[in-house]
Amino acid sequence: MSVSRERTSVTEVSLHRPYLAANVTAWDYETDVAIVGFGATGACAAIEAAQAGARVMLFERGSGSGGASALSGGEIYIGGSGGTDAQRAAGFEDSTEDFAAYLKAAGGACADEAKCDLYAHEAVNHFAWLKAQGVPYRGNYLPGKHIEPTDDSTLIWSGSEAAAPFCDIAKPAPRGHVIAHMGWGGGRPLVDILESRARSLGVKVVSDARAVALVKDGERVVGVVVRVDNQDRFVKAERGVVLCTGGFVFNEDMRRRYCPDTLRLSSPIGDQDDGSGIELGVGAGGDAIHMEQYFSTCPWTMPEPQAYGVFVNQAGQRFINEDCYHGRVSRTALDQPGNRVYLLLDIAHFDQPLEMAGMTIAGTGDTWEEVEQELGMAAGTLSATMAFYNSHAREGRDPLFGKRTPILTPLDEAPFVALELNFATSYFSFFTLGGLRTSTDGEVLGRDGKPVAGLYAAGRCTSGLPASGHGYSSGLSLADCTFFGRQAGRRAAAG
Amino acid sequence: MSVSRERTSVTEVSLHRPYLAANVTAWDYETDVAIVGFGATGACAAIEAAQAGARVMLFERGSGSGGASALSGGEIYIGGSGGTDAQRAAGFEDSTEDFAAYLKAAGGACADEAKCDLYAHEAVNHFAWLKAQGVPYRGNYLPGKHIEPTDDSTLIWSGSEAAAPFCDIAKPAPRGHVIAHMGWGGGRPLVDILESRARSLGVKVVSDARAVALVKDGERVVGVVVRVDNQDRFVKAERGVVLCTGGFVFNEDMRRRYCPDTLRLSSPIGDQDDGSGIELGVGAGGDAIHMEQYFSTCPWTMPEPQAYGVFVNQAGQRFINEDCYHGRVSRTALDQPGNRVYLLLDIAHFDQPLEMAGMTIAGTGDTWEEVEQELGMAAGTLSATMAFYNSHAREGRDPLFGKRTPILTPLDEAPFVALELNFATSYFSFFTLGGLRTSTDGEVLGRDGKPVAGLYAAGRCTSGLPASGHGYSSGLSLADCTFFGRQAGRRAAAG
Repeated sequence: MSVSRERTSVTEVSLHRPYLAANVTAWDYETDVAIVGFGATGACAAIEAAQAGARVMLFERGSGSGGASALSGGEIYIGGSGGTDAQRAAGFEDSTEDFAAYLKAAGGACADEAKCDLYAHEAVNHFAWLKAQGVPYRGNYLPGKHIEPTDDSTLIWSGSEAAAPFCDIAKPAPRGHVIAHMGWGGGRPLVDILESRARSLGVKVVSDARAVALVKDGERVVGVVVRVDNQDRFVKAERGVVLCTGGFVFNEDMRRRYCPDTLRLSSPIGDQDDGSGIELGVGAGGDAIHMEQYFSTCPWTMPEPQAYGVFVNQAGQRFINEDCYHGRVSRTALDQPGNRVYLLLDIAHFDQPLEMAGMTIAGTGDTWEEVEQELGMAAGTLSATMAFYNSHAREGRDPLFGKRTPILTPLDEAPFVALELNFATSYFSFFTLGGLRTSTDGEVLGRDGKPVAGLYAAGRCTSGLPASGHGYSSGLSLADCTFFGRQAGRRAAAG
Repeated sequence: MSVSRERTSVTEVSLHRPYLAANVTAWDYETDVAIVGFGATGACAAIEAAQAGARVMLFERGSGSGGASALSGGEIYIGGSGGTDAQRAAGFEDSTEDFAAYLKAAGGACADEAKCDLYAHEAVNHFAWLKAQGVPYRGNYLPGKHIEPTDDSTLIWSGSEAAAPFCDIAKPAPRGHVIAHMGWGGGRPLVDILESRARSLGVKVVSDARAVALVKDGERVVGVVVRVDNQDRFVKAERGVVLCTGGFVFNEDMRRRYCPDTLRLSSPIGDQDDGSGIELGVGAGGDAIHMEQYFSTCPWTMPEPQAYGVFVNQAGQRFINEDCYHGRVSRTALDQPGNRVYLLLDIAHFDQPLEMAGMTIAGTGDTWEEVEQELGMAAGTLSATMAFYNSHAREGRDPLFGKRTPILTPLDEAPFVALELNFATSYFSFFTLGGLRTSTDGEVLGRDGKPVAGLYAAGRCTSGLPASGHGYSSGLSLADCTFFGRQAGRRAAAG
């Protein structure tokens, strides 16, 4: 017994279990709401909590705001309620019902229907709120297929809305809303604007402060321990703690336990996302769900002609309608047997692949039969797939997967090429989607479905709108982070 | 604060959090090792703990021993060390290296390599131990492809050992060892023998006793609360508690949170497996891993001629070498787009499908083109697949998936038939494979990788040898249950 007693001595702090309030000898900080993590999620939570009248402190492990949000394109998935001004100006009506139906289909078996319904209902108001915080939008629509706008355009198609099976489930509309920012990388200015707004509301920011434990008094979370200059500082949070720490893509041990499929991929993206918020939340009684889910994509749609390509697996079989979101195609590619798939192009749709993508030319030929042979595939596999595809593409049909024009087009102009997307060596960026289970108010829920008192969470340390890797759309994670970050901040301020 | 204090009052017991030892006013039972669950896992744990000299009590929620084990075929996956007597008598050598390599390949990204290595090394000794407990084996080999022997034979091929890709990873051998029992259903006599042995060693069994909470003193588990006749009974376990409660296939809420893919299937198998051991273990500080993994199978290989069939998905594409384990084929079928796959047969390989399987005749024809048309598939899909398959099968080759003779055989004798395996309405039995993370000694490990003192677990409330649904082999779960049940019992007895 004495050994176990020692293990709970007052000097031990751990991500994996709460620190007991009775062992806190003195509080270093006292606030109403303590927020952990200063990406877009934490910033939005801070703004709402401060506007609700709470004293707010925000603790960030890095030297300043940012997180994975600042590495993103600053695109937010918004629609419903008849459409945003940008949607309507471009002639797209977007009903709340269609928006909710798309969100649920995208989440698949992992969808949180209550979150989908609430967000579909509130997204247009959320867009107004973002503008009110100072986030600028040009307001125009940029047609075509883009990963991010290369100019400062607002509205793009950013998911699988217009592709099967989604277009048969919900009337499609473009819903990716991008901050007015020239070129890629709108995430950084988005966070800067939200940070500025939070600071103007009196939010106190402590940087280089890593959360190492939650503090509990009985069943209630009453504070957080942060490590600053290698010293543990005790933060009393009268109304609650909000975890906004991101996913666990940079925690290889967690990936091995919960999401081992990602161990074969080489390009995690994020900003030190080590799952610490998930560990803190579960240690305090929270529940982590859908932990095997991850987003992954290879930038195969660039240069643009490549978007017209056809994918086959090692058996020479197609496996998806390639006109859906590039991430859905990539994620489905990773489900195929073996360790690679091929992107097939004719000369009319070939350009040098991006060097960063790590896609290599694996076979060429004056006929698809020659390409097939160069890839070492049996005669009548890839070549038959392409003969079938081309004959139907000429009629504007894809009987196998429902791909649509104009992306659906014959690839029959010799010479032909097969680009290899190798799961280990090509650039498959990825991040995790599983995390704490939360209510629509951002309350962290225990395995019994009841809230853990005093504990809130949002963003990628939770399972939210982007619940499934196969149904991801660009802007879905930032939508979840910003909207449910606000929900959590407001709920925490209410105590 | 007062509200949260009330929530930890001494009268509340919950699967989701430990009961504090300080709140126990009197112990109803005192023992060294308390085992929860009386399937094969609990029985083996009890035998080992008793043999190590510990006082052992076993608590079972049902009215007697059984669990999912008693519903099984009583088949245990055994090999390595040159082979069991049954393997060697039939001419199969089986090295420990090959056995371990197969186990690891079967577990895929979820494999626990230490468990695979230990079991591969010890399995032949484990077989001797089972015999020493009184489990009878006839010792003969039954060639062919069987789900379970229909007689009392011992050794059968029960996995994907001889099929691609496993046959290229490890030298194949049959490893399914079945208790001498006429016909299916050897699990019941297996549990009966183990129960008899446990009782003869003085293990005290309390039936109709449902575990509702673990008792913790500081960081250590020191007992368990069981509910008997709607009264909570407090069990002091001086050396440890062993959870042997099975998976969570009958807990729809847990499946929704951790394994939602199974919600579309209609035939869970098990015996009240409600995940309570996982909830208890996680609540006490344990870690639940690979919770999305599940076994599923449809009995498509019966009647026996059907085993020679070819599977296609809704796009008319093959997706696997059909000569691998029926469960691997079924599980991969569930990965295909849509909600069904088709099993294609010619008249030489057709017999009326089992009524229980819920497989229906979806199309027939004098040519594969006619079948294709009846299924509503585009011309040149299914028919091209079968033309390609048959032409290569005549040469004894399957260039796509490496299927082998004799299962690889042309299907060219008209008329032809397509049986539909519908994910919702056909009989896809399933059970869950994810659970508590444990050491090779059965210690429940926390998220920090350290053992939860006093807490042990084995069987399907843990993630073990059958780590992945795609790599399951018959007998793998009972191997895990019986061997690691023993490990946990012995370790718990050591205190």
